[in-house]
Amino acid sequence: MKSDFDALMLARSLDAILVFGNAEHNPPMRYMTGGGHVSHATLIRKRGEPAILFHGDMERDEAAKSGLKLISYSNYDGAALHKQAGGNGLLASAMRAELMLKDAGVTSGRVGVYGTYDLGAIFGMLTHLQKLIPAIEFVGEGREDSIFMRVMETKDEEEVAHIRNMGRITTSVVGRVRDYLTSCEVRGDEVLLKEDGTPLTVGDVHSRIRLWVAELGAELPSGFIFAIGRDAGVPHSAGTPTDLMKLGQTIVFDIYPAEAGGGYYYDFTRTWSLGYATPEAQKLYDQVREIFDTLNDNFDLNTPFGNYNLMTCEYFESKGHQSPLHTKAPVEGYVHSLGHGVGLNIHERPFSGLTAGDDHRLAPGVVITSEPGLYYPEKGMGFRIEDTLWVRPDGKMETLADYPYDFVLPMKKWKKK
Amino acid sequence: MKSDFDALMLARSLDAILVFGNAEHNPPMRYMTGGGHVSHATLIRKRGEPAILFHGDMERDEAAKSGLKLISYSNYDGAALHKQAGGNGLLASAMRAELMLKDAGVTSGRVGVYGTYDLGAIFGMLTHLQKLIPAIEFVGEGREDSIFMRVMETKDEEEVAHIRNMGRITTSVVGRVRDYLTSCEVRGDEVLLKEDGTPLTVGDVHSRIRLWVAELGAELPSGFIFAIGRDAGVPHSAGTPTDLMKLGQTIVFDIYPAEAGGGYYYDFTRTWSLGYATPEAQKLYDQVREIFDTLNDNFDLNTPFGNYNLMTCEYFESKGHQSPLHTKAPVEGYVHSLGHGVGLNIHERPFSGLTAGDDHRLAPGVVITSEPGLYYPEKGMGFRIEDTLWVRPDGKMETLADYPYDFVLPMKKWKKK
Repeated sequence: MKSDFDALMLARSLDAILVFGNAEHNPPMRYMTGGGHVSHATLIRKRGEPAILFHGDMERDEAAKSGLKLISYSNYDGAALHKQAGGNGLLASAMRAELMLKDAGVTSGRVGVYGTYDLGAIFGMLTHLQKLIPAIEFVGEGREDSIFMRVMETKDEEEVAHIRNMGRITTSVVGRVRDYLTSCEVRGDEVLLKEDGTPLTVGDVHSRIRLWVAELGAELPSGFIFAIGRDAGVPHSAGTPTDLMKLGQTIVFDIYPAEAGGGYYYDFTRTWSLGYATPEAQKLYDQVREIFDTLNDNFDLNTPFGNYNLMTCEYFESKGHQSPLHTKAPVEGYVHSLGHGVGLNIHERPFSGLTAGDDHRLAPGVVITSEPGLYYPEKGMGFRIEDTLWVRPDGKMETLADYPYDFVLPMKKWKKK
Repeated sequence: MKSDFDALMLARSLDAILVFGNAEHNPPMRYMTGGGHVSHATLIRKRGEPAILFHGDMERDEAAKSGLKLISYSNYDGAALHKQAGGNGLLASAMRAELMLKDAGVTSGRVGVYGTYDLGAIFGMLTHLQKLIPAIEFVGEGREDSIFMRVMETKDEEEVAHIRNMGRITTSVVGRVRDYLTSCEVRGDEVLLKEDGTPLTVGDVHSRIRLWVAELGAELPSGFIFAIGRDAGVPHSAGTPTDLMKLGQTIVFDIYPAEAGGGYYYDFTRTWSLGYATPEAQKLYDQVREIFDTLNDNFDLNTPFGNYNLMTCEYFESKGHQSPLHTKAPVEGYVHSLGHGVGLNIHERPFSGLTAGDDHRLAPGVVITSEPGLYYPEKGMGFRIEDTLWVRPDGKMETLADYPYDFVLPMKKWKKK
């Protein structure tokens, strides 16, 4: 949470943090400003002091929504700086940044650099700035372990409200897809048909998913998964658009919509088999469901997340499947880790893989996915169940959007003969 | 065009370029790879040699779609490097980058750094890399004048096909909005009504625009404009969602959809008045239309783009309006410049403002917007007409998507009494 900044900055010997870019698809800036349509903004937060947002004059109203202390770029005479810099735009930017840092009380020490933005422009500017202020050491942290990833790891109630709202949108879209699929006519060879009598394809379903997510005002990163048969058995296959939708095949449906402009995500997966399931598929689904439920019964405050991944590996191995515990990079069985944190990044701390440290814990405020799965591409099937859960301040785990766990979805206009 | 790289690199004394990040919302990587779902990729292009794409093993198929020479990250022993780096992830990345540069034949000289990506991670990595290879000078260029902005300034036929396709989608959405609006019932006070009999708001129209763009498979950056009345008179106002849609008020509708995942844009504006127009609005619209048509008749190969902005300023001033030519930052009249280049960036070279140099020309292959406008917020009205045009290799200008220029849109169920 934001209240962790000062302690973490102190622990990392950071005297200030410097965030660049607009608030779209830029988690650190979005986190600090709460969104809003600010472009080319700069944020400086000196340790122990409130953050200052430097913004363009035209964006004063949007910048004000952040509730941050504001300074307009027009406080600095751009034309004069440009002249002084001999027409070198990057040097002029650096000279302005020097003045901004000074106004924020930052004239020496270690300053961390953050944001998703144009690398060339910022690297060029920082190269000049470093020469202008040798007393400051500019520092870049690795993405996964940056101070932002640490601060953002635990969410406050307002952030959870955003994630919960995306969960509501997500499950609403999933419900529409379910209604649509189960309402289809079915041909003699068990292929689903569209209203116009032609076969329904995976690509058709992808289009509808995109449409419904957009209609509910969210953003859907490319790479969402609605895959059937063999593709369902490959964890990162998005599904082949030309595949026909058929009864009795496993469908893995994994979507992670975000608030428009790159806000909070929700991550969700269900596995379906339309009309009926083969006995083998039903058996494997039941195993995934069993460990999913067992995990929900066992999640406990402050326990390392990786413990539950280990529990999942052991469970699946006890059922005769491969897992990363005793197989290096398995392609069949349980092939990934149990889950990950979710927030302004679809993957963030805490992580649960076998190499994740014990500091990746179910601490109060953490929002995680639990997503055990089994994959058998050669058998043409795959299974995953995933919810997004919040570790509440009172230590209880809460699934942020409820949705049924039915595997076989009965077809409204088809009955097994 | 890509064929300009070597000459431009030589002119800027760049021995190689280094591009980071995935191919989504990252124009340089998208440009080099042609899209595809590659994440955490690195591209190195030594002057005079083909580019090499370094990619994760899992993304081999997607990376292959680029047609580039490929090297998998698994060629470098990540675990050994991590150990050698004493567990410092950024140093390990830098050590791998050193090997990659070596494999690309880059061991000294000036290397430009590009991409939209996590600033902290790349800055941290480059800080280490600079120490590992003192014989290389890593260089960041300003965004507007970077080598990519220069190379991307002229488009080949394949790129134009992408932009043309987005133009088709854009005008199709605009047509749907027009049909929807003109089909509405109208209340006695000239407010449009929805199917359920309640007033139609600007927010309702925004939702439909989002929905229809998504249905056609494109991406709509937040900040698109559908604004009525006073808001239409403020060039960057997106429109107030609670405003009611009424007859006889100017509507500025400016959308710039992009291919999903941050591909090529199209930029388009029409101004409408539903049912009827006030005489004053009609007069101002006719002026915007007149200069718009005059410009189309006058655009000429290799002429500086700014000349046409000047022509527009002079035309509007001759009609008694303010323009930037003789008024500093006007808020009424013609308040912006004529247009800009369009490609993988919604705003790119060439530019047309009064400070743009004569090297911003209508060179063969350039794709520009022409968007003259007039703004009178205090009168509650604004006007802009915008098409995206391509300077063809034969020197002719071509509007990439045709759409009618009607100002007054007759209502199907309403007649002036």
